[in-house]
Amino acid sequence: MPAPKQILEFVDTNADAFIKRLAEAVAIPSISGEIERRPDVVKMAHWLDAQLKKYGVETKLVPLGKHVMDGTELELPPAVLGKIGKDPKKKTVLIYGHYDVQPASKSDGWNTEPFELHVHPTNGQLIGRGSTDDKGPVLGWLNILQAHQEAQLELPVNLQFCFEGMEESGSEGLEDLIVKEAAPAGYFEGVDCVCISDNYWLNMRTPGLTYGLRGLAYFKLTVKGPARDLHSGSFGRMVHEPMTDLIALMSKLVDSQGNILVPGVQDLVSVCDDKERALYDSLDYSIQDVEDAVGASIALSSDKATVLMGRMREPSLSLHGIEGAFYGPGAKTVIPAKVSGKFSIRLVPPQTPDTVGDLVVKYVEEEFKKLGSKNTLEVENLHGGKPWVADHEHWNYEAAIRATEAVYGKKPDLFREGGSIPVTLVFAESLGKNVVLLPMGRGDDGAHSTNEKLDRSNYIEGTKLLGTYLYEIAAQA
Amino acid sequence: MPAPKQILEFVDTNADAFIKRLAEAVAIPSISGEIERRPDVVKMAHWLDAQLKKYGVETKLVPLGKHVMDGTELELPPAVLGKIGKDPKKKTVLIYGHYDVQPASKSDGWNTEPFELHVHPTNGQLIGRGSTDDKGPVLGWLNILQAHQEAQLELPVNLQFCFEGMEESGSEGLEDLIVKEAAPAGYFEGVDCVCISDNYWLNMRTPGLTYGLRGLAYFKLTVKGPARDLHSGSFGRMVHEPMTDLIALMSKLVDSQGNILVPGVQDLVSVCDDKERALYDSLDYSIQDVEDAVGASIALSSDKATVLMGRMREPSLSLHGIEGAFYGPGAKTVIPAKVSGKFSIRLVPPQTPDTVGDLVVKYVEEEFKKLGSKNTLEVENLHGGKPWVADHEHWNYEAAIRATEAVYGKKPDLFREGGSIPVTLVFAESLGKNVVLLPMGRGDDGAHSTNEKLDRSNYIEGTKLLGTYLYEIAAQA
Ligand SMILES: [Zn+2]
Ligand SMILES: [Zn+2]
Ligand SMILES: [Zn+2]
Ligand SMILES: [Zn+2]
Repeated sequence: MPAPKQILEFVDTNADAFIKRLAEAVAIPSISGEIERRPDVVKMAHWLDAQLKKYGVETKLVPLGKHVMDGTELELPPAVLGKIGKDPKKKTVLIYGHYDVQPASKSDGWNTEPFELHVHPTNGQLIGRGSTDDKGPVLGWLNILQAHQEAQLELPVNLQFCFEGMEESGSEGLEDLIVKEAAPAGYFEGVDCVCISDNYWLNMRTPGLTYGLRGLAYFKLTVKGPARDLHSGSFGRMVHEPMTDLIALMSKLVDSQGNILVPGVQDLVSVCDDKERALYDSLDYSIQDVEDAVGASIALSSDKATVLMGRMREPSLSLHGIEGAFYGPGAKTVIPAKVSGKFSIRLVPPQTPDTVGDLVVKYVEEEFKKLGSKNTLEVENLHGGKPWVADHEHWNYEAAIRATEAVYGKKPDLFREGGSIPVTLVFAESLGKNVVLLPMGRGDDGAHSTNEKLDRSNYIEGTKLLGTYLYEIAAQA
Repeated sequence: MPAPKQILEFVDTNADAFIKRLAEAVAIPSISGEIERRPDVVKMAHWLDAQLKKYGVETKLVPLGKHVMDGTELELPPAVLGKIGKDPKKKTVLIYGHYDVQPASKSDGWNTEPFELHVHPTNGQLIGRGSTDDKGPVLGWLNILQAHQEAQLELPVNLQFCFEGMEESGSEGLEDLIVKEAAPAGYFEGVDCVCISDNYWLNMRTPGLTYGLRGLAYFKLTVKGPARDLHSGSFGRMVHEPMTDLIALMSKLVDSQGNILVPGVQDLVSVCDDKERALYDSLDYSIQDVEDAVGASIALSSDKATVLMGRMREPSLSLHGIEGAFYGPGAKTVIPAKVSGKFSIRLVPPQTPDTVGDLVVKYVEEEFKKLGSKNTLEVENLHGGKPWVADHEHWNYEAAIRATEAVYGKKPDLFREGGSIPVTLVFAESLGKNVVLLPMGRGDDGAHSTNEKLDRSNYIEGTKLLGTYLYEIAAQA
């Protein structure tokens, strides 16, 4: 059951007004990670709340308490919750999105002012901070609400909304709220499925659906030796040097082909069978795509499925850097006294930060003993999140797939992502309901980069997609 | 032939005046590494010049041209050259010292103002920047000149002086001057030996003499992959990561016991025979000394001679850090696009920056090929200096040894140092004369640290030592 013609036509007819609304939203620099922008984040919450109310949504702003950022205590921006429709015969869909954005300033290399939506005169790109992450998708829902109000049509499902203003800064305060409201008699009572639009197509050509996210375990290895930094002229080859030990340990974690060397970590992962492999083979993706994206011919394999599986269904270990060592330009002959290596492992089911963390700590401590160093080692399992994989044969996905086919005339790529959107797992686990990640933007939108954009066609067709998805949900009731 | 009683008594009688002069010198913050202090370095040159003139030294200030520091073009501070005595029957001794100092500010952790000489009320330490490095020793020579002038005694040798104001900033401009003036008919014509007092006892108890310095070869390994930093969620296990390759390479350079793993580097070093080993066994030094100095029980061996040989007659390889990786506190999941590992090798004869550099470059490039990475590697041999070892049975050393015995009543430790004073090699090679490093200060003076000090007894007895050394030189004529 595609969306009614009136709705689709309304979207086309009102495209320019929708873009104007996006410009209004982008003009509020709701950067959650900057203290001085906090009032703008709150302003954005009120703007969104007013829009929802205008289209008949019953809303409430939920305070999430205080937190400390860069030494300053701040009020967290409120969660914006909303409900429209209470028909027990209809499915209830919970929509999540975020109204905060990443930092941006023209001097970072933007071609236009990041907080003035720029409509590219020839290719129609809508350029501005938050255009694709995540104001465009959030406004897609507003557009659909407006379309129904003005066409005087009832929504095909009951809707609930949960919009937050701290996503780009760790979603502080949200998990507690979700867990509380997902409990019996909570605000989210009656929710049948969840839809999150905060992700992207795999490429620039084919719409997609995300059904999995990797988790994360982040580690800090600290090797401590002398009481203060030493000069290599005075002490080189007299004492055990912390950097030597740390580099030795870090070299034993992953090899140049991306294989994780920590025993047991790879063993936790299921072997890919032919059916699963076929799924990766079928994706509209090429080695050229990844090499274009990174700007160099450095793919780990010339086999497309292998490369995609590396991101989507394999764990990865990346060495991020070292704290406490010499990092500037030039040449210093220091023996650093205390150095901390940072690395993280992206996790796939059934790995968890705890199971993988235990393996890492045990292994690193054993390897350190083998070095025979008199320095001391501390291994910290800093933080992490579990991976998430949804049942992509669930009716929630069926609806999203059919909606995509209806709007774009082609089957969406079904894939897992390499990063994490921690709130996904919180919804999935606390509600016990299926969650679909239904993207509006393309793979080259540059969500956290300079010149972030959302293609005009993705905004407009994406709005239709969100609307159609609701009708496809209703059709399965 | 010890120094005449009159000279030694003059030194004792005038100790307070000498300390006052040191306070005057310390009060001029002649930091060569800070643009805004350059006028103070020049002021110090003029102060020193006036002092030398006062005691009958014929001087000249030699401009050394301009250089660029932190993007600013600056006039280099002048070299202060001087001569006193032209008796062809006497030996001619060339004295080197430097009148610039390391940066210092109270906020770095000094207990007193670094540029106000503080005389500790109970232990008599003379605390201030430059007290021991190198204003104290330079003033030792002034004290001796004054003693001879006021006692109306002729100096036992002809003296030449070469004082520079850029030692702490790479001695820019000096090498050319020395090479030029060491040539026939140059300013240094007729010099028979060189004495440099810019080093320290091995410990806090026994005077010493330094007859060797290690050289240095500094390397930068740059691994480049993607065109820009990547997010490990998006690209982890899709591409070859530069950090993984770099850490693998750095782990193959040195082991936790200090052994250099680059083939051929250790082979260049002569094996220590029993006679040489006896020399290290004889030094007044203990494992406790090194562990006290570094503030931790991390000596590479429990054998004192092995630990000393590590610093004095073995090459050492230290890993200093990585440029381009994540170095801050906290947790970032970046895949750095381009990372440069910095390490250096301290060299001993017959190693040179070139011979060792070739071995390192070849080895690192071979090891990189073994990694099978599609990233690119660049190996740079950044800069370096040759090691230096003097003949410690030369009459110049005999004189310094006898002077030490005369003043301190004990044989000096004869040792090599782990660092480098590049000007030493320039004098030795361009003049073809023996150079002795005759220290005034103790091993715990903290030359480049906060609360730099020179013990009162080292300043006063050290002044006697410098004077006596001249008489012992004369006695060997
Ligand atoms: Zn987002
Ligand atoms: Zn984002
Ligand atoms: Zn010095
Ligand atoms: Zn110095």
